[in-house]
Amino acid sequence: MRAMNESSLKALLESVRAGQTDVAEALQQLRRLPFEDLGFAAVDHHRAIRCGFPEVIFCPGKSTEQVVAIFARLAATGNNVLASRAEPEIYRAIAERFPVAEYHGPARAITLRQGERVEPVGHVAIAAAGTSDLPVAEEARVTAEIMDARVTTHYDVGVAGLHRLLGATEQLQQANVIVVVAGMEGALASVVGGLVAVPVIAVPTSVGYGASFHGLAALLTMLNSCAAGVSVVNIDNGFAGGYIAAVVNRQTAGNK
Amino acid sequence: MRAMNESSLKALLESVRAGQTDVAEALQQLRRLPFEDLGFAAVDHHRAIRCGFPEVIFCPGKSTEQVVAIFARLAATGNNVLASRAEPEIYRAIAERFPVAEYHGPARAITLRQGERVEPVGHVAIAAAGTSDLPVAEEARVTAEIMDARVTTHYDVGVAGLHRLLGATEQLQQANVIVVVAGMEGALASVVGGLVAVPVIAVPTSVGYGASFHGLAALLTMLNSCAAGVSVVNIDNGFAGGYIAAVVNRQTAGNK
Amino acid sequence: MRAMNESSLKALLESVRAGQTDVAEALQQLRRLPFEDLGFAAVDHHRAIRCGFPEVIFCPGKSTEQVVAIFARLAATGNNVLASRAEPEIYRAIAERFPVAEYHGPARAITLRQGERVEPVGHVAIAAAGTSDLPVAEEARVTAEIMDARVTTHYDVGVAGLHRLLGATEQLQQANVIVVVAGMEGALASVVGGLVAVPVIAVPTSVGYGASFHGLAALLTMLNSCAAGVSVVNIDNGFAGGYIAAVVNRQTAGNK
Amino acid sequence: MRAMNESSLKALLESVRAGQTDVAEALQQLRRLPFEDLGFAAVDHHRAIRCGFPEVIFCPGKSTEQVVAIFARLAATGNNVLASRAEPEIYRAIAERFPVAEYHGPARAITLRQGERVEPVGHVAIAAAGTSDLPVAEEARVTAEIMDARVTTHYDVGVAGLHRLLGATEQLQQANVIVVVAGMEGALASVVGGLVAVPVIAVPTSVGYGASFHGLAALLTMLNSCAAGVSVVNIDNGFAGGYIAAVVNRQTAGNK
Amino acid sequence: MRAMNESSLKALLESVRAGQTDVAEALQQLRRLPFEDLGFAAVDHHRAIRCGFPEVIFCPGKSTEQVVAIFARLAATGNNVLASRAEPEIYRAIAERFPVAEYHGPARAITLRQGERVEPVGHVAIAAAGTSDLPVAEEARVTAEIMDARVTTHYDVGVAGLHRLLGATEQLQQANVIVVVAGMEGALASVVGGLVAVPVIAVPTSVGYGASFHGLAALLTMLNSCAAGVSVVNIDNGFAGGYIAAVVNRQTAGNK
Amino acid sequence: MRAMNESSLKALLESVRAGQTDVAEALQQLRRLPFEDLGFAAVDHHRAIRCGFPEVIFCPGKSTEQVVAIFARLAATGNNVLASRAEPEIYRAIAERFPVAEYHGPARAITLRQGERVEPVGHVAIAAAGTSDLPVAEEARVTAEIMDARVTTHYDVGVAGLHRLLGATEQLQQANVIVVVAGMEGALASVVGGLVAVPVIAVPTSVGYGASFHGLAALLTMLNSCAAGVSVVNIDNGFAGGYIAAVVNRQTAGNK
Amino acid sequence: MRAMNESSLKALLESVRAGQTDVAEALQQLRRLPFEDLGFAAVDHHRAIRCGFPEVIFCPGKSTEQVVAIFARLAATGNNVLASRAEPEIYRAIAERFPVAEYHGPARAITLRQGERVEPVGHVAIAAAGTSDLPVAEEARVTAEIMDARVTTHYDVGVAGLHRLLGATEQLQQANVIVVVAGMEGALASVVGGLVAVPVIAVPTSVGYGASFHGLAALLTMLNSCAAGVSVVNIDNGFAGGYIAAVVNRQTAGNK
Amino acid sequence: MRAMNESSLKALLESVRAGQTDVAEALQQLRRLPFEDLGFAAVDHHRAIRCGFPEVIFCPGKSTEQVVAIFARLAATGNNVLASRAEPEIYRAIAERFPVAEYHGPARAITLRQGERVEPVGHVAIAAAGTSDLPVAEEARVTAEIMDARVTTHYDVGVAGLHRLLGATEQLQQANVIVVVAGMEGALASVVGGLVAVPVIAVPTSVGYGASFHGLAALLTMLNSCAAGVSVVNIDNGFAGGYIAAVVNRQTAGNK
Repeated sequence: MRAMNESSLKALLESVRAGQTDVAEALQQLRRLPFEDLGFAAVDHHRAIRCGFPEVIFCPGKSTEQVVAIFARLAATGNNVLASRAEPEIYRAIAERFPVAEYHGPARAITLRQGERVEPVGHVAIAAAGTSDLPVAEEARVTAEIMDARVTTHYDVGVAGLHRLLGATEQLQQANVIVVVAGMEGALASVVGGLVAVPVIAVPTSVGYGASFHGLAALLTMLNSCAAGVSVVNIDNGFAGGYIAAVVNRQTAGNK
Repeated sequence: MRAMNESSLKALLESVRAGQTDVAEALQQLRRLPFEDLGFAAVDHHRAIRCGFPEVIFCPGKSTEQVVAIFARLAATGNNVLASRAEPEIYRAIAERFPVAEYHGPARAITLRQGERVEPVGHVAIAAAGTSDLPVAEEARVTAEIMDARVTTHYDVGVAGLHRLLGATEQLQQANVIVVVAGMEGALASVVGGLVAVPVIAVPTSVGYGASFHGLAALLTMLNSCAAGVSVVNIDNGFAGGYIAAVVNRQTAGNK
Repeated sequence: MRAMNESSLKALLESVRAGQTDVAEALQQLRRLPFEDLGFAAVDHHRAIRCGFPEVIFCPGKSTEQVVAIFARLAATGNNVLASRAEPEIYRAIAERFPVAEYHGPARAITLRQGERVEPVGHVAIAAAGTSDLPVAEEARVTAEIMDARVTTHYDVGVAGLHRLLGATEQLQQANVIVVVAGMEGALASVVGGLVAVPVIAVPTSVGYGASFHGLAALLTMLNSCAAGVSVVNIDNGFAGGYIAAVVNRQTAGNK
Repeated sequence: MRAMNESSLKALLESVRAGQTDVAEALQQLRRLPFEDLGFAAVDHHRAIRCGFPEVIFCPGKSTEQVVAIFARLAATGNNVLASRAEPEIYRAIAERFPVAEYHGPARAITLRQGERVEPVGHVAIAAAGTSDLPVAEEARVTAEIMDARVTTHYDVGVAGLHRLLGATEQLQQANVIVVVAGMEGALASVVGGLVAVPVIAVPTSVGYGASFHGLAALLTMLNSCAAGVSVVNIDNGFAGGYIAAVVNRQTAGNK
Repeated sequence: MRAMNESSLKALLESVRAGQTDVAEALQQLRRLPFEDLGFAAVDHHRAIRCGFPEVIFCPGKSTEQVVAIFARLAATGNNVLASRAEPEIYRAIAERFPVAEYHGPARAITLRQGERVEPVGHVAIAAAGTSDLPVAEEARVTAEIMDARVTTHYDVGVAGLHRLLGATEQLQQANVIVVVAGMEGALASVVGGLVAVPVIAVPTSVGYGASFHGLAALLTMLNSCAAGVSVVNIDNGFAGGYIAAVVNRQTAGNK
Repeated sequence: MRAMNESSLKALLESVRAGQTDVAEALQQLRRLPFEDLGFAAVDHHRAIRCGFPEVIFCPGKSTEQVVAIFARLAATGNNVLASRAEPEIYRAIAERFPVAEYHGPARAITLRQGERVEPVGHVAIAAAGTSDLPVAEEARVTAEIMDARVTTHYDVGVAGLHRLLGATEQLQQANVIVVVAGMEGALASVVGGLVAVPVIAVPTSVGYGASFHGLAALLTMLNSCAAGVSVVNIDNGFAGGYIAAVVNRQTAGNK
Repeated sequence: MRAMNESSLKALLESVRAGQTDVAEALQQLRRLPFEDLGFAAVDHHRAIRCGFPEVIFCPGKSTEQVVAIFARLAATGNNVLASRAEPEIYRAIAERFPVAEYHGPARAITLRQGERVEPVGHVAIAAAGTSDLPVAEEARVTAEIMDARVTTHYDVGVAGLHRLLGATEQLQQANVIVVVAGMEGALASVVGGLVAVPVIAVPTSVGYGASFHGLAALLTMLNSCAAGVSVVNIDNGFAGGYIAAVVNRQTAGNK
Repeated sequence: MRAMNESSLKALLESVRAGQTDVAEALQQLRRLPFEDLGFAAVDHHRAIRCGFPEVIFCPGKSTEQVVAIFARLAATGNNVLASRAEPEIYRAIAERFPVAEYHGPARAITLRQGERVEPVGHVAIAAAGTSDLPVAEEARVTAEIMDARVTTHYDVGVAGLHRLLGATEQLQQANVIVVVAGMEGALASVVGGLVAVPVIAVPTSVGYGASFHGLAALLTMLNSCAAGVSVVNIDNGFAGGYIAAVVNRQTAGNK
């Protein structure tokens, strides 16, 4: 009875109603009702909620063939697809089968948009401290855009050159949510967090050397932010930054 | 010219126009236009945006007298006030001056609600793994509630007893945002993150011993969550969890 | 229909059979069948499997009243009960209500054995490196014994005095499973692991100072053991050591 | 008297009895009785106990020639042989001399089964969180199988997609022992540990990036598991996971 | 109005005075006066203060084209330019456009000196512990020299050969500020700090292996220096060492 | 000949010249010329250079009697004396013997100023992020002032409330050197470093909790500052911050 | 036959020789000859080698009664006895039974010298960086002296006041082995290691604060010493420092 | 007067005595007596003491040309020369100029023995845990042998196969000093330390993976050894292990 789904459950109940299956027998079948089916139902339902959000493939450690195969399977759902940290050769292989797929070089991301292009909604602002943080910031941007957020980017606004950041303040204050991307000392998140009233998603990057310890310094800085609205994701995880921002943005824009 | 604001700026320009102030003098005044005033204006504006959100005092390291003084100053703004990690003796001192201030024992928080009590809006769900995580979870709850969020709590739903968590899933799925509070291995954030489509704010706690390293284990777990919607705040920072959740909830509820 | 259990499920099916509830309605009720109930059923079932294993209370961070209350609730199941890391005053409070409860001083554990005392089965050997490791080793012993394992203890057999360990080898080799408890450099686990063919559960302790870093040194040593049969639990977690050993012992003794 | 063994010891005693060696001389010989011989005897005996378990070669840092030489020496014992973390070129060299040796690509393992193939016994379940954890999980599988365990695998059952894990619960509950393989946040061990009553051997993997710190996050998570039956081995040590599981399985299956 | 500077501000005020722009319009322009412009003014002012200090490019992670482009842009300011951690091929590309640019091989630095060469002032002493620390020490030297400091270098004066250091003491005592560069145990900073009365800028290097943990040991040593005049910069950050030293030297030399 | 100094050296040479000591004997005395005496001479000389700088006692771990004894010995030199991290009872004991000694409560410092009070010179600015950082900032202030620096303090100018910091910018820009004191995320050093052209001495504090790891987060942030003029001292080491700032200030003020 | 020792072994052999025990029976007894007895024999033999070396008790974590009991048992061997990290009350209890036992206050050590006082041999030099390192240095001294080494102490010779260290160089160069005790930055070990040709045993101490991380900084410094003759023991382990030095000294002095 | 040595000092004194140099002038010359000369003298003296010990070159980070040049310079002293961690191509270059230089492949070391080969003295035992630790152990052996120690090696005696170690015990007990080389869990040092009465120099290696953290686990284990005679050097520092052992051995053998 492993693959029980709604129709087989209905069949069982009808069989009970018809007297073909007695209660004890039905009870026995129901008691062994596998978790995964209910679970799957739950997930389906919740997939429906997420509708329009991309399916995601994290490419490192997968062969080009594997990525293409997963990409094709996800594309078959009719949803948008996102492949992150994809080398150009992966894109070339995907582009053969999906000519409309796009490659975002700095972000190392491949997107496939399916169905009509919807109008971007709301406002996700992405602020990055230095030019070396750009790949992570771009991954956040590509992610948020494929999830239909309107995005503004504010790059090279690190705290050591405060005037550039202050110049961007007004735009940042108009966003529904802000993604802050910074390596080295990661101080940008706190400063932005003190300038705005909306949630700030901080993405530490591994940019730096020596006592940056591959992003640990930026991570700790951001976790200790004295600005109350700052929460943090994993080092270099631009995808999570863009994803969470897009969810908050969508909720704020009333599209939930 | 320290407190220059729009009207004094207008006065200056009119004085220039009227020929009472010459250009060099006006230039001089404008060049020295103090940053703090612009900044203060920005902050004022943004305070206005935040209106109704509590002013917060972090009590550890402050004397009872200091807390009372700051509390009184914040209360004078007419806004709600929150004092976190407050020992009972601090409350007793505050209660003498603010008899309507409330003490939330498990959360070790004092709140002062001013103006009419507004109807809580939206839905913030707070899930905590174990009973020892309760003080942090309660701090999140008190924070979110003083910020006018409707809150549901789901305590003792740790992953080692999955049935309790699954029993709470439906409610969690209905929230606008979820705060997950967990110490020891901190796995709850990932599991909840996989069950819902809304943002999850993960609060690691220092509950545990040995290789929990005072919350480090839970913190790392949460940062590495493979569920995309999870972002993390500092260890034991229930306040930040509740604050961010309330902001997202408010934005979702359309009250921005 | 929140508290659905087997009888209410049976009632529903009978109602379907009797034609009082139609299939669509039953389907609707079943689809919303709360997870926790299935879960709870699963847990009950699996509790039944575990039958005779103790219910456990980790005392630190709980008031005496809380421990007594939980203890009483667990005792009401008729199973054995174990309270770990319990101070003597907690025992005194429990002993008032449960005069047959025992206090194991070195282990700081309280046990309540209910039903007839069964004959201990199999053989769990517990080896501890130094006298300071004794509290953790004793916690393991008390845990394994309340789970009906026959236990032998081999204390003060640290690797710096190899002759004592070698003298215990024969007994260790006869056990079904061995718990090795060691702080400081934690080398005992590797040495024992090389002498026996059964599983070794290594429990690092926080005994030591300086570069022991509160048990980290012993933990890392044990994780890097070149003896293949060694697995590790948290620092000072004598309970887990005794628990896992008792489970393996029970399975080995054919009582599963 | 270096190579003293039972027969030479007997000869010595007979010589004493016959008056050919006086007591002082015998005492002298016995006092210098080399440790290694007793030790070696003990080991021999214990090798005999382990009989049927594979001899293992850890390949990294060894030249192809060295691996082949050790492999040949181990094979000469007539036991099964396992070479772990072996590159394909090592396999090619071994296959020339041992054409029946098998290469397990995903596990990067070479096995040589000697004697008749015995019927696998018991049930070791292996659960892995993500597809990237597969090499480590496969190493555990190959190890357990060459040790004659019956193995079921449950891959891609990470906690962020709980329904897949729940769908596997029934099978997991029927195993004698479970190996849980997970990187990133490593939460799977706790969740599985809460669902079953048998020992769980947790294998953290280095899968992840940033704050996974090459497996440290997963390792700490697993060590802090609040499910009591979980013990942990070194990061990426699929061999230890499979080995310990096979030992517990064998003991459970009554073959000890 | 993005590029507003003092002259355009003056023009605006004159336009107000002349009645060509009314107050409301001027107010509007001033209100939107972008922060970056004020900021930029501040920076300009402060750039003017720094006059003669190099503009710096950190090369790693930038393509040769990017470095050349930034280099050209900075050179256009008429200031000196410094590119740090530059591979020879970057230099070749720059030398094509800026034939007078120099390459400092051991320091991996490119400098472009513009305007007349000023006489070096003051005295910056650079002491390095071992020959492997030389690249970092040279980066400090090149930086200080392009900032017009007179520099003396004292290499291979590590504390394990104290006589060499003592031989350099007199010269060190005559400097205005000392840069100490050391890897491995980093003890040189403390010893030098105890011999002189001027500020010591300590630069830990990643030279070493094992428990040097890529410079962490030297970093901690230097931070814990019991000599009061020692402050520390990031691991391998010869640029910061040379920069700060040059600033202190310039201030000391009365050129501020 | 232990206390050889210039005059005894002169006496020796004169004795040689007078023929009272022969060359071999003089050679012998000179060869054994104790290192410490040369060293001591060097130090005396360099003490003279430092003239007016305080002698310092770090109180923790010393008994009140010990502190008083050392204090008296240092006071006997006629220089100013500073005792850091002194509890009030230590002050009471010192005040009995040195009634003019002052106690600086927030800084937990005792100072004894001897000779005429000189006019403070130059300008050391001290900026502190939060009120909890005040004790460390005050220790820096007291240290710099006893070393005759003119000090301005700028407290509670943390980056989360940028307007307050911007308001202090002008004063910060006028200082010869700035001490930045900050705990939690420590971002203030970078922001200040980007606003000024003078050296910034960053003092991380242990203020914070959770992932601040007792000041580690602030320390790493400051070490990774992308503003080039920032160097760092040990966590909570306000004394070093004040000391180095006073030295730089004195050098800048041309008093060297 | 557990307590077999040389005399019982002799008795067995004589019984064989006398024909009272046959060979098979003797073989059986010998085969089961417990390892610990051989081990104990080995240890006895090797104890004999060590003759005159103290038996040691590490007091922390033991009750006064336990320490007294162990002390009495060790004293019964006729050897010298050392109890380390002993509080005064432990000494008082011991002094009642062993009036000749001495208490070394700064070292927190109790010694009992038995038999005639032998003339100290050789030369162990102990150098300590600061006065706070004195308790650890004194523990080393007391240990070395009870092991009959002649000891010279050189306290307060930290590297920030190099002249004091240089003044002690001659004496250090005459020692057979040197114990260097230092906290904070621990640089003393490298400097001493570069001045002498004998082995240096480095003892890091937990003296310091902030980034000393309870002795970790000093430990790493010492491990990275570029002076080849430096080896390191655990943080604060003055006992090990003194013990190893005394062994090397004894071997050097030709008394082995 | 830079190169002042005993004869020039004598000349100066004679010139004073002869009245050719007056006291003030002599004083002036002596006052400036450069530290390095005294220092150098000290070192020369102490070099003389060390006589016969190798001059050492640490090759990594040096070009082949640099190594050859340093090698030639050291060889010119007539002493033995040792180049550690040398790749074969470095050896080839050296062999062209020094055909009698030897290459020790597993140790990656080059030695040049000059003068007559002396008879090795004493006994240094080197024990290594696994075959992967062999390069480090061989570096220790080559170092000790070029310093004229008689060396015995005991490889593959890891604690997981205790019988092999016990078989080597007798030989280990006869050594003057033991070098223990071990990676992974590093437990060998403690076990050996408990079996012998001579100093044990422990060399942790970076052999291992996962939670060995590149040798950190072995390092911590060894530092926490409960055997008192164990001191530790840096990870993979076979040279230091061999060097210290040779010094202790030489002192023990009475050759000092």
